[in-house]
Amino acid sequence: MHQERFYTLTASCPDQVGIIARVTGFVTGHDGWILESSFHADAVDSRYFMRIEIKAASLPFALDELRRRFAPLAAALRMDWRMTDSARKKRVAILVSTQEHCLYDLLARWQARELNIEIACVISNHDSLRGFVEWHGIAFHHVPVTAENRLEAFATMRRLFDEAQGDTMVLARYMQILPPDLCAAYPGRILNIHHSFLPSFVGAKPYHQAYTRGVKLIGATCHYVTADLDQGPIIEQDVIRIDHSDSVEDMVRYGKDIEKTVLARGLRYHLEDRVLVHGNKTVVFR
Amino acid sequence: MHQERFYTLTASCPDQVGIIARVTGFVTGHDGWILESSFHADAVDSRYFMRIEIKAASLPFALDELRRRFAPLAAALRMDWRMTDSARKKRVAILVSTQEHCLYDLLARWQARELNIEIACVISNHDSLRGFVEWHGIAFHHVPVTAENRLEAFATMRRLFDEAQGDTMVLARYMQILPPDLCAAYPGRILNIHHSFLPSFVGAKPYHQAYTRGVKLIGATCHYVTADLDQGPIIEQDVIRIDHSDSVEDMVRYGKDIEKTVLARGLRYHLEDRVLVHGNKTVVFR
Amino acid sequence: MHQERFYTLTASCPDQVGIIARVTGFVTGHDGWILESSFHADAVDSRYFMRIEIKAASLPFALDELRRRFAPLAAALRMDWRMTDSARKKRVAILVSTQEHCLYDLLARWQARELNIEIACVISNHDSLRGFVEWHGIAFHHVPVTAENRLEAFATMRRLFDEAQGDTMVLARYMQILPPDLCAAYPGRILNIHHSFLPSFVGAKPYHQAYTRGVKLIGATCHYVTADLDQGPIIEQDVIRIDHSDSVEDMVRYGKDIEKTVLARGLRYHLEDRVLVHGNKTVVFR
Amino acid sequence: MHQERFYTLTASCPDQVGIIARVTGFVTGHDGWILESSFHADAVDSRYFMRIEIKAASLPFALDELRRRFAPLAAALRMDWRMTDSARKKRVAILVSTQEHCLYDLLARWQARELNIEIACVISNHDSLRGFVEWHGIAFHHVPVTAENRLEAFATMRRLFDEAQGDTMVLARYMQILPPDLCAAYPGRILNIHHSFLPSFVGAKPYHQAYTRGVKLIGATCHYVTADLDQGPIIEQDVIRIDHSDSVEDMVRYGKDIEKTVLARGLRYHLEDRVLVHGNKTVVFR
Repeated sequence: MHQERFYTLTASCPDQVGIIARVTGFVTGHDGWILESSFHADAVDSRYFMRIEIKAASLPFALDELRRRFAPLAAALRMDWRMTDSARKKRVAILVSTQEHCLYDLLARWQARELNIEIACVISNHDSLRGFVEWHGIAFHHVPVTAENRLEAFATMRRLFDEAQGDTMVLARYMQILPPDLCAAYPGRILNIHHSFLPSFVGAKPYHQAYTRGVKLIGATCHYVTADLDQGPIIEQDVIRIDHSDSVEDMVRYGKDIEKTVLARGLRYHLEDRVLVHGNKTVVFR
Repeated sequence: MHQERFYTLTASCPDQVGIIARVTGFVTGHDGWILESSFHADAVDSRYFMRIEIKAASLPFALDELRRRFAPLAAALRMDWRMTDSARKKRVAILVSTQEHCLYDLLARWQARELNIEIACVISNHDSLRGFVEWHGIAFHHVPVTAENRLEAFATMRRLFDEAQGDTMVLARYMQILPPDLCAAYPGRILNIHHSFLPSFVGAKPYHQAYTRGVKLIGATCHYVTADLDQGPIIEQDVIRIDHSDSVEDMVRYGKDIEKTVLARGLRYHLEDRVLVHGNKTVVFR
Repeated sequence: MHQERFYTLTASCPDQVGIIARVTGFVTGHDGWILESSFHADAVDSRYFMRIEIKAASLPFALDELRRRFAPLAAALRMDWRMTDSARKKRVAILVSTQEHCLYDLLARWQARELNIEIACVISNHDSLRGFVEWHGIAFHHVPVTAENRLEAFATMRRLFDEAQGDTMVLARYMQILPPDLCAAYPGRILNIHHSFLPSFVGAKPYHQAYTRGVKLIGATCHYVTADLDQGPIIEQDVIRIDHSDSVEDMVRYGKDIEKTVLARGLRYHLEDRVLVHGNKTVVFR
Repeated sequence: MHQERFYTLTASCPDQVGIIARVTGFVTGHDGWILESSFHADAVDSRYFMRIEIKAASLPFALDELRRRFAPLAAALRMDWRMTDSARKKRVAILVSTQEHCLYDLLARWQARELNIEIACVISNHDSLRGFVEWHGIAFHHVPVTAENRLEAFATMRRLFDEAQGDTMVLARYMQILPPDLCAAYPGRILNIHHSFLPSFVGAKPYHQAYTRGVKLIGATCHYVTADLDQGPIIEQDVIRIDHSDSVEDMVRYGKDIEKTVLARGLRYHLEDRVLVHGNKTVVFR
């Protein structure tokens, strides 16, 4: 990521002749310096996707004015679009259960300023990671989830997320299924790491399923959460090799290494506005 | 693979104390020189697997006598076992349709003596690759398969395979489903390359399925053919990264590279007696 | 690659505000439909790189006229640029010695129309692959190279390449070092596959060097040939895992699989005008 | 790793007929249950390597007695050998500077009991990670290293390591070069993670070197530290893909992900006695 402040335009619209020229012409018309630009034409759906980083200091006005001036062109092109400011750190809430590998990994990246974020809070259905989180000066909320209090618990979590002004919710091996209304409330803003190479081994105990089928690689998938379990748009995936000598416990252990890496990559793409959702798929401008 | 002649023992048996000592003690008792040895204890099923290469010249007798002398110990250990001779090249029949990439790849390896095999014959439901195959001095059989002649066609193929004294049948992107009786006739001797990372995308058009799901990696799987389509024991798998800009046609093209590599690796493991089937899984002593 | 005919502009120029807007504005001004576009700003050297595919049928004139009209803008932007036509297949000459794996692989891709090329000819310092090449209807030239006839031999090869109207020369495990004048005559048009992960193990017998050092991965590198042995701009690289049980011969065998894949990928990038040389490095718009 | 207590024999000796039979015969003679066994014959050097895990409860005596009884056979076979007890956790000292990614990663694995170790202490030439380390209940020693106090500082570190009864010293991105006498004092017991794919880019600033050379993959190497900088026996390596758009800063960031994974894998192999040094190479029984 660039160190100097920049604005990021992400947009998609019906494909037609001249989109790049009109959008970059608009930017250039205000002396905007384009740091990075990516374009993709989906030929099957005739839809156009773009992501442009504009150096903030090159423009004679601020982001709000840029948005205001861009709006007519966006309307003419029938765009879905947004503009973000690299100086405004996104606020990420992390949901965990008892496994700590993804949490340690995310906090190490946050400490090293590798991820340009603020941690809004950590929410867990267990209390075991409180000390580690609070040592970092981060708010920790223990919200137990039981068969009885389920809806109430998730209403509490939603309130905590909103109060902490969360932008993005990350399920970092959080072992509860979110209720549909929570998924629907934050479309494209909740990321999960699933411990299989989807669409293989949906649902519970994917490593056990992988062991039983005798696959030679196991994987992990970072995807947006939707009401359909493990069916949301895939952002990033990776695999590692196993063999006949690996038990389910070995797979669980090896799997952690790809879970945390795939989650961190997927989250970074999301936070840098590199992911555009297209139906149940994603365009990822890496 | 070792250049000098050797015998390979592959075996599995119920686990108990002393198996390695008894088997290697037997070999040593005849001054047998062990070139390579691999052992695996499956703790879940209490079953023991092994593969041992013995230098032929170190033994005072030939393979038949080695088999005869080993039989009582194998019986005492309740072993499933076999012994093969590296000097006897396995005879491989290759089944293809119209796509040539796996065929070219296998024949290049055969030419370079990278695979220690004889090509028994090539059988195809199309005639288009006849010239290329025959140029290599290999028998080519065109056996068209239609809805009407299906059973007859596969009976012909089975006869051709037997007449050519085939040991192993390789479906190198052969686009017909083998009938159950053919699968049953050669258990653990028919290898297929499936163009997906199984168990994802079983059946027809896996690249289309992958495109629709929006996965970020596509794969290929080499497995033994059983009567259950794409459900046989997996020998080898691999994947390759794709992204949103790749069409189904791009995936087909990239996929070829892993199809041929995965097939060649799986076939080599099979031909070197490195694969032991265990239920619907495999032990692969690489 | 797109099936419909298109023109490809590749260009680099000093970075400044407005390059994309001016170039795409030019295209749009002629109703040109952009199929694919990639841009890269090298911040260290303040240099800008681009690649744009324009649908041929969308323009009211042919490529020559497009070039003529684009020239003033290119001059204003101080561009190094070229435009190619997807309907004109590049003519590739393949140089080989005795190892056949890359040759088989390239011809399989050519047969399958995976590579959009014509094979100008195959040149070898050995005669052993003549039959295979000629069976494909391709001209084969045996040009022995000895200590005595070296310069003469390479002069012959250069004449053969020119007579066959070669665009690109591919060293597909050709085991002779090209003389500096030959390298200089075709800058950015000669590709080599080196059997190591450069810059490790430059020069002869890289697998022996890798064995001696005890590395855990071996690699292959596709690069442009320059007068400095194995020092030219790198186009593509990949690696494969080995371990202590692998002999030099095993490495040679495994290495072939990445050699042919890396060469094919690098060649495809080159042929599709996806590679822009930048000093001794490359920009590759995959 | 197995959950039940076991003893691990690692050994190497001149190759001859009957080694496995004699060693496993010895184990079986005491009713020893072999959980896992690996063998390797180095044909070039005629040397034999082995690693055997024996279930502790299957033996009628303890490890000391096992060692005593095995010694005559080991002597007869002219073995270099050792036996370790899975119940005795190895004590690891971690050396760090200011980068925290490897430290977070190792402590997460220790917390999750993924690594069967005790952390003897953390030593750093900076004080910045003290709080994080001490929060975990681990002793932290700040030992500044300057041009003037170098020898004294390393003498202090050696004393701290010995006082903490350290078995293994891990340089987790520790940015000082150890003096030769320290390397010599703990042969095969000091592990380093180097941020390049050795032997490429030895020494300082490997990512800058990689950027300048224009490689398409960057790597990391875990190796034993010897007096020759970055020349010790390699235990584990891996790479990740980069491209022309990645700056040195991007490489540094991506590189962290393989550094920590490669270090953790190499360390685990070492701690589980899976690594046997052979000259300047390693046998790794994964």
